[in-house]
Amino acid sequence: MVSSVSVIGKRIRKVDGREMVTGEAKFSGDYIFPGMVYGTVKRAGVPAGRIKSIDVTPANAVPGVVDVLVAADIPGPNLIGILPPLDQPVLASDEIRYAGESVALVVAESAEAARRGAQAVAVEIEAYEPILTVDAALAPDARKIHETGNVTFSKKLRKGEVESAFERADILVEGDYETSFQEHAYLEPETVCAVPGRRFTLYASCQSPFHIRGHVAANLGVPASSVKVIQANTGGSFGGKDDVATEIGALACIAAQRLNRPVMIAHERKESIVGSNLRHAARIHIKTGALKDGRIIAREVRVLLDGGAYASESPFVTMKTLIHAAGPYNIENVSVESTSIYTNKTYCGAFRGFGVPQVTFASESQIDELAEKLGLDPLEIRRINGLRAGDPNATGQIYEQSVGLLETIEEIAKRPEPAGRKDDDRHVHGTGYAAVAQGISNGAEGIDVTGASVQMSQDGSVLVGIGLTELGQGSRTVYALIAAEVLGVDVDSVSVRSVDTDAVHDSGPTVASRSTTVGGMAVHKAASEVKKSLVSMAALMMKTEGENIELRDGFAVLRTDESARIPIASVATAAYWTGFPLMNLAFSKAPEANFDDETHQGDVYIAYNYGTHRMDVRVDTLTGEVTVLNHLAAHDVGRVINPLGLEGQVEGASLMGFGLAHMERIQYVDGIIQNANFADYAVPSIKDRLPTATITVEDPNPTGPFGAKGAGEPPVAATAAVFANAVADAVGVRFTRLPITREDILDALKRGNHD
Amino acid sequence: MVSSVSVIGKRIRKVDGREMVTGEAKFSGDYIFPGMVYGTVKRAGVPAGRIKSIDVTPANAVPGVVDVLVAADIPGPNLIGILPPLDQPVLASDEIRYAGESVALVVAESAEAARRGAQAVAVEIEAYEPILTVDAALAPDARKIHETGNVTFSKKLRKGEVESAFERADILVEGDYETSFQEHAYLEPETVCAVPGRRFTLYASCQSPFHIRGHVAANLGVPASSVKVIQANTGGSFGGKDDVATEIGALACIAAQRLNRPVMIAHERKESIVGSNLRHAARIHIKTGALKDGRIIAREVRVLLDGGAYASESPFVTMKTLIHAAGPYNIENVSVESTSIYTNKTYCGAFRGFGVPQVTFASESQIDELAEKLGLDPLEIRRINGLRAGDPNATGQIYEQSVGLLETIEEIAKRPEPAGRKDDDRHVHGTGYAAVAQGISNGAEGIDVTGASVQMSQDGSVLVGIGLTELGQGSRTVYALIAAEVLGVDVDSVSVRSVDTDAVHDSGPTVASRSTTVGGMAVHKAASEVKKSLVSMAALMMKTEGENIELRDGFAVLRTDESARIPIASVATAAYWTGFPLMNLAFSKAPEANFDDETHQGDVYIAYNYGTHRMDVRVDTLTGEVTVLNHLAAHDVGRVINPLGLEGQVEGASLMGFGLAHMERIQYVDGIIQNANFADYAVPSIKDRLPTATITVEDPNPTGPFGAKGAGEPPVAATAAVFANAVADAVGVRFTRLPITREDILDALKRGNHD
Repeated sequence: MVSSVSVIGKRIRKVDGREMVTGEAKFSGDYIFPGMVYGTVKRAGVPAGRIKSIDVTPANAVPGVVDVLVAADIPGPNLIGILPPLDQPVLASDEIRYAGESVALVVAESAEAARRGAQAVAVEIEAYEPILTVDAALAPDARKIHETGNVTFSKKLRKGEVESAFERADILVEGDYETSFQEHAYLEPETVCAVPGRRFTLYASCQSPFHIRGHVAANLGVPASSVKVIQANTGGSFGGKDDVATEIGALACIAAQRLNRPVMIAHERKESIVGSNLRHAARIHIKTGALKDGRIIAREVRVLLDGGAYASESPFVTMKTLIHAAGPYNIENVSVESTSIYTNKTYCGAFRGFGVPQVTFASESQIDELAEKLGLDPLEIRRINGLRAGDPNATGQIYEQSVGLLETIEEIAKRPEPAGRKDDDRHVHGTGYAAVAQGISNGAEGIDVTGASVQMSQDGSVLVGIGLTELGQGSRTVYALIAAEVLGVDVDSVSVRSVDTDAVHDSGPTVASRSTTVGGMAVHKAASEVKKSLVSMAALMMKTEGENIELRDGFAVLRTDESARIPIASVATAAYWTGFPLMNLAFSKAPEANFDDETHQGDVYIAYNYGTHRMDVRVDTLTGEVTVLNHLAAHDVGRVINPLGLEGQVEGASLMGFGLAHMERIQYVDGIIQNANFADYAVPSIKDRLPTATITVEDPNPTGPFGAKGAGEPPVAATAAVFANAVADAVGVRFTRLPITREDILDALKRGNHD
Repeated sequence: MVSSVSVIGKRIRKVDGREMVTGEAKFSGDYIFPGMVYGTVKRAGVPAGRIKSIDVTPANAVPGVVDVLVAADIPGPNLIGILPPLDQPVLASDEIRYAGESVALVVAESAEAARRGAQAVAVEIEAYEPILTVDAALAPDARKIHETGNVTFSKKLRKGEVESAFERADILVEGDYETSFQEHAYLEPETVCAVPGRRFTLYASCQSPFHIRGHVAANLGVPASSVKVIQANTGGSFGGKDDVATEIGALACIAAQRLNRPVMIAHERKESIVGSNLRHAARIHIKTGALKDGRIIAREVRVLLDGGAYASESPFVTMKTLIHAAGPYNIENVSVESTSIYTNKTYCGAFRGFGVPQVTFASESQIDELAEKLGLDPLEIRRINGLRAGDPNATGQIYEQSVGLLETIEEIAKRPEPAGRKDDDRHVHGTGYAAVAQGISNGAEGIDVTGASVQMSQDGSVLVGIGLTELGQGSRTVYALIAAEVLGVDVDSVSVRSVDTDAVHDSGPTVASRSTTVGGMAVHKAASEVKKSLVSMAALMMKTEGENIELRDGFAVLRTDESARIPIASVATAAYWTGFPLMNLAFSKAPEANFDDETHQGDVYIAYNYGTHRMDVRVDTLTGEVTVLNHLAAHDVGRVINPLGLEGQVEGASLMGFGLAHMERIQYVDGIIQNANFADYAVPSIKDRLPTATITVEDPNPTGPFGAKGAGEPPVAATAAVFANAVADAVGVRFTRLPITREDILDALKRGNHD
């Protein structure tokens, strides 16, 4: 790793920003091909039951309808999912497990005709009593939603001896916490466009193209090499387009195969909410034992996740809650049990934060309660217990470097409180703190290999390809910066191509804040190989050794005489004609996770992002309205690649955590989502933008490019927690359930806890 | 190299054959995008002059016309070409050098409106006296077509002492030969489709996408990394789409940039003939000296190529004639001088055979003359002089392996003559022979590096990417077979992707019969790397060492116990989850050419394809009609990858040589092509199909995959030559000019040389 850098760390606008704001960018829905037809999915409409019959005749009679597919029309196994054994059908043929379940695809000359056709499909369902809560699912005589039962996944973590430690504790706090289902609410609903041919091309608004390729090919009954998935520009995903793009991608390709015509399937907003995964609702019980001096010596956590009808990412989310439930603290004795449960609701899966926001809210609430009981300042208790380099975390993993939690606490501590916080008759003020650690990379959840290619043309311009997707997080810009830094060229001469499964090795999913870290390392590695060719060529041209050559500012420069320099474009042209390869495909593999499956003790992640937030709020006691006056978000990101991009990530993730904490709640009645639209389901808008100030701590991470660590997820958890703590401080009542809406605040105030 | 193979050598249908014959294959003209507009080029219409003015007003007034571009609208240098210094404008701004010269681009809502617009553009040209022959161009006071003069390129080859050897010779023959311009006559005229965006995408019917990318980017004024060229399925090229796709690709992208709309430019047939390169017409003088025993001891050749208005590939074609003019013979003293000349005619460039057909016709005609004078059998004189392993060829290069010329002669010699050859009052019969050697790879003409990627999915299916284009020659099938052979899978599970400049290193042009040899080596190398991962994984799974594992028939098999086998799909899945990369990007670099620039002595090509043909003809003395009764084409191809594909190449190339020899002649009057359509310019049709029997000799080539050598070009030269010799044998007159049409034969017969 170089330490002196020239491009890294500058504030760079997103390389694809201009096309996004001008509307020039092409999204899946913009891929219009001659002869294209449109598909709409027919959904069950009841949360549980068994299909008795599907009559497609009325749909076929709708003008414009050209084809109707049911389960029997799927050439492959009619199965999708994340982990084997797969448990979700592309189209249900028998059992209905949630109301949004897909039972048929209607294809028509227009999207409108397809929707009318879908309405006309007559599905006769023998309804079952739906299982709508985790308690109902876990009841001894509960109907089994899947053959395997109603427990999707369960896992334990054991470190030390919790029971005996609780006995030694001076103080114990214990409590139950709850969080709601959350919708990803990306601007662009799920859309795919399938083009048939010698090979199938699928343009998809998606997050994990390789995953889609595998499932699409299997369900199409063709080899994976016959399917090419191209990630179109994607208007947000946040984990939400992993599963559903697989489903509608397979359907679009199957229809394209049958009709030999391009097929587009574009979800409407309602479908995007009811028919694709949500964030798991959680019930969390925590018991914490501490000594009088503030040291936490034991923590026990039980997490129950409502995962809805299918497994999706539940196993991984469950594991993530398991590992993160104890918080970013050095606690000698920890016991966690995390379980995800099947219910007859929309399936839950990946969502930015991946379970960490739920457990962090619970954990940080209880840390505040503990501090209060101990008479400690909230920052002080976090300072006492916070992980330092060399400390073992909940899984017993020890990092000797890049553990900047305490630095983030001190960054927060040294900031003055904002002015104008004086309470009046109507308004009360509060300040909250929260600390977070979030594991970077797939870690325990899977293999973590990413491929990237770097290609230099004869004019010295650079093309970067990678298997991880740009979802708005700015990863294209990060990759461009890394390649520019390594190759000594201007960032404007670097292009990052759209992800295309043909072009690069299966790089796994774009999740777990791994883009910058694991993806960035792959780009760094590939660029470094191209650099070798350039340096060798320049050395030949300058009649010197490679070690004397530096690539900088678009030139190959002789270290001993900086006036001796050749433009990189000239070096690249010469290298081409000399036969030095100017392209490399490299793979970065994260250090392997290595832990005991029984206790979950061991090395899990390649790094953690650590953070501390402070939030100052004013609550209007008449309306319950909360005004965030101040929001400090300090994170140890190892090394900042692009400060502007990092701020965007911190601000965006914070607002998402704010939505979870304050506004968003999927409302079910009898297993049917009542607020599947943005009129009834409120998400933060631009007017709710937080006054987030991003503070960065740079404690270089040896496993990331130039020392960087991912940063896209941790602020979600921190903000959800800090909001709860700030509001509790303001109104003097602790809330144990998210979201804490204006109504909840008014209720609490009415219950008289406020003077 | 393995010697025992299981897939290589089987007769495999083209992997993309089905889509081609069903019409499912998508060509450039099938890429229709919303908002697309159409471009038509306005051409000069006079062969030489200077532009005084261009008035685009009338064109803009044509309904549907949206834009008219002239030279001043080109952001970049307005220059294209193959080798620096580039000499061809995208749009002429000043001097007109040939009648097909592009002077403006009219863009309209429909192709028809664009054509009307192009007709309406008013170009005022001050006409010059055109220079229409090489003699006129070389006249001392000739006007200079380019500032550099009228000689495009000139090169000499010197081996031994020709003059003194001629003095020692027992017999001398000397003669002049001529060949005509030839049109590539591919089914699909040149077509490109440009799509603007963050990066430009150009779908092109083309042969060398990297070359196009560079020129398009330069003329657009953007970095090469901002342009992505995708080779659409290409309906033939034969060398003809190298230059012109650059010109119309740049124009389409510039228009797309100006209008922010997709732009298609599709040539009509006439434009394809007048506005893109042809095969060089040649004038060749040869003098050969031999001893009484038949041994040729000296040869002197002068080649004059009419290259038309721009350099294009003239330097390379000129070099190729230089190297091949002496034929596939071991001649101690050789002197060749090859020169290409500028004239005010359509520029000439790459065309299957690349100059070798012209010189082979001349050389083989003279060999027959010499044999006749020496009283030797035509096969015998070729047997006496033919190159053997260990012999130095014309450039002094010695191959110790894979020199199968003599074997091809013996294969021909042992075949009986066909029955029914008895002359009658009206019909005469003749038999001709010709030998050929054609260098494989770019060799002396440029660096020869090719990149290929091989990616295996978790289901064991394989995707091959490469930078060399499928133009109908069957290279996708060859690559699929090589990957299947290396990886032990069925060819059906291998897909070969379309070429896309993003995906692979600049692999140079798809020329010089280098696809199988140089491209195949890259695929072999990349596949072998993937194989290493698979073998390592299988060894782990079987608890053995890698050396005990073989990949075969879709399984990893234990060598010592063949019943122990794991499906490759299972190995691939395990390898993915273990983190073994299942993709590799490899580069094959041909051994470097190394020769003296003054004498052209040295190592030029990585291998030669050697061949001997025999043709038996019947000539109708009343009509001049020639019936080919028998055509034996024996070639040493090193190793046959796909016999069916090889036969297709030999048959197709032979028919193209037949067209050159018998039918095709571009007719100029005052610098204007008179027969720019398929009614007046006759190409061989399916009714002219030759009874070609492909005979293969396999003398493995150490520089090719599994020993293979390219085979797509040599039969053109051999057939052109063998036809001339067969007809000469039949009618008793030697023809010194190609094509030898029915009229030429009747003329010759009238001149009374036939009894």
